[in-house]
Amino acid sequence: MPPEPRQATLTDIAARAGVSVSTVSKVLNGRTDVAPATRGRIGRLLSEHGYRTGRRTGLADLVIDGLHSPWADELLAGAVDAAAEADCAIVVNRVRSPEEFAAVIDRIVARGTDGVLTVLHLPRGPVLERLAAQGVPLVVVDPAEEPGDGVRSVGATHWYGALTATRHLLDLGHRRIAAITGPGENWSVRVRLDGYRAALAQAGVPVAEGLVRADRFTPAGGRRQALDLLALREPPSAVVAGNDAQAFGVLQALAERGVRAPQDMSVVGFDDVPVAEWATPALTTVRQPLAAMAATAFRMLRLSTESGAAQPDQVELATTLVIRASTAAAPARPE
Amino acid sequence: MPPEPRQATLTDIAARAGVSVSTVSKVLNGRTDVAPATRGRIGRLLSEHGYRTGRRTGLADLVIDGLHSPWADELLAGAVDAAAEADCAIVVNRVRSPEEFAAVIDRIVARGTDGVLTVLHLPRGPVLERLAAQGVPLVVVDPAEEPGDGVRSVGATHWYGALTATRHLLDLGHRRIAAITGPGENWSVRVRLDGYRAALAQAGVPVAEGLVRADRFTPAGGRRQALDLLALREPPSAVVAGNDAQAFGVLQALAERGVRAPQDMSVVGFDDVPVAEWATPALTTVRQPLAAMAATAFRMLRLSTESGAAQPDQVELATTLVIRASTAAAPARPE
Repeated sequence: MPPEPRQATLTDIAARAGVSVSTVSKVLNGRTDVAPATRGRIGRLLSEHGYRTGRRTGLADLVIDGLHSPWADELLAGAVDAAAEADCAIVVNRVRSPEEFAAVIDRIVARGTDGVLTVLHLPRGPVLERLAAQGVPLVVVDPAEEPGDGVRSVGATHWYGALTATRHLLDLGHRRIAAITGPGENWSVRVRLDGYRAALAQAGVPVAEGLVRADRFTPAGGRRQALDLLALREPPSAVVAGNDAQAFGVLQALAERGVRAPQDMSVVGFDDVPVAEWATPALTTVRQPLAAMAATAFRMLRLSTESGAAQPDQVELATTLVIRASTAAAPARPE
Repeated sequence: MPPEPRQATLTDIAARAGVSVSTVSKVLNGRTDVAPATRGRIGRLLSEHGYRTGRRTGLADLVIDGLHSPWADELLAGAVDAAAEADCAIVVNRVRSPEEFAAVIDRIVARGTDGVLTVLHLPRGPVLERLAAQGVPLVVVDPAEEPGDGVRSVGATHWYGALTATRHLLDLGHRRIAAITGPGENWSVRVRLDGYRAALAQAGVPVAEGLVRADRFTPAGGRRQALDLLALREPPSAVVAGNDAQAFGVLQALAERGVRAPQDMSVVGFDDVPVAEWATPALTTVRQPLAAMAATAFRMLRLSTESGAAQPDQVELATTLVIRASTAAAPARPE
């Protein structure tokens, strides 16, 4: 089947739907005096061709499984700031299960929205169809799975971030570099671990499997793994943590064992949430531009209205290493 | 003038407004086929008597000057969690000036909302009238000024929090206790400073004025004041910071000067944001129940619908001292 033309006219869409142009126009303008089945059919066609149905509400919906973390806060703040610039506000919908997710999407669609941003969660078939039928654009922020062709998303270059963090430690003379990662089912965790391995491989340093750990993305997770690493016969001289929260926990473990950071052990975080620079020592970390990711996703919601571009698109924003005070040259050791 | 009866009937309100009961009922149900001036007059009467006009939207609006801080994140998370329990969602409106504030309130009222929560900001005359005329309930969270009779608010017991923090240090044998506060125009800052002074007075310890500092509510503010305090001929042995962010900055200053926390200097924060326990050493701090404050405010929005209680109400939730690792007995000193 040849690809669909990118910008069909309303006349084309009317012909395809078997209705008049004025009916298409009604659906486009959010009028409800068109039979639901017809409205659905026209809505789907309009949305396939990059038209947005319904009236602007001045609201965009963020769907997230919880706040209470600096990571979530940065994403939300980025969306709120971008929305404010567009005289828009962000509705925060907390969703904790797939069933809740479908119910919340129903509620959002019934109320009306200019678009939906989901965090981590990659919606599937029925939800995608429901949104498309109503002409509601969707963008996924920091997808927890490999984003497919059907959904637009904004992530970050996790692989490159972990590579630069590990390379920074190699450049400082470290050879025994531990990696603490997050829960294994998360896509970005696997991608980052590959970046860590790639940096070691490029430097000809073998991966010591006992130095690769997985735990929760919390200070407690980082502390637990760091205490364990410190108890090894040959402890590492540096740790790449899975996120900044874990890195804070590593710093606590070091203090408990009287190990100085960065003189005795270097620590790198991941994310660069605002509190990363509150740490003592201030954290060297891989900056994931969380606020910019959410802001980009918000702007992508609006693109579908204006440009008629309905093609899915996956964007990855650059990660950058931010060098602060928690990394230093490897301590001299008898080899 | 005698106080208004708490629960007038629609017939009373109709008589008072000089309209029929069915007109009052229309306004109560959010119908727009009533002349605007009449609608306004009836709306005001309904709202004075605790009725809510308009249809439930499933949305409540939070108006805040910015996110990007653990303090703001906790407030927002509390509102979002309470809303989710009520099948509701929170709209986040970022407002940075009084002009923007009025415009955002207009937009919210035009769109429809189940209620408005403002953070810090205590709205005045015209905005209050606009909300009352539309029957939109309002609650202020953590008011930055002394809350007056006209507005409901939820705060925390700042005075008692500062008192318990200072008393904790006195109990540990500290006598030279510094206080770093926030910007002086903030009401809670003055209240907390009074709590600090009260604890010292009760213990018969004079307030050494050089030990009372004011700075921004940031790690940089805390660091700056701590470096200054450490440079005194007689430095303090303990610091009560104005918030947790300042306390993080104090810990950085101590590390820079080789002063150990808590052995050489005790540090207490304020707020107990989630990252307070990420610090090394984990922060002893005054817990301000931020999430519960916002959740309480959200629930108060809904009370006006159900109970008919239109009386303003100021609530203060309890602060509690959370003792972690950043405070210890005062070091022995030659007196």
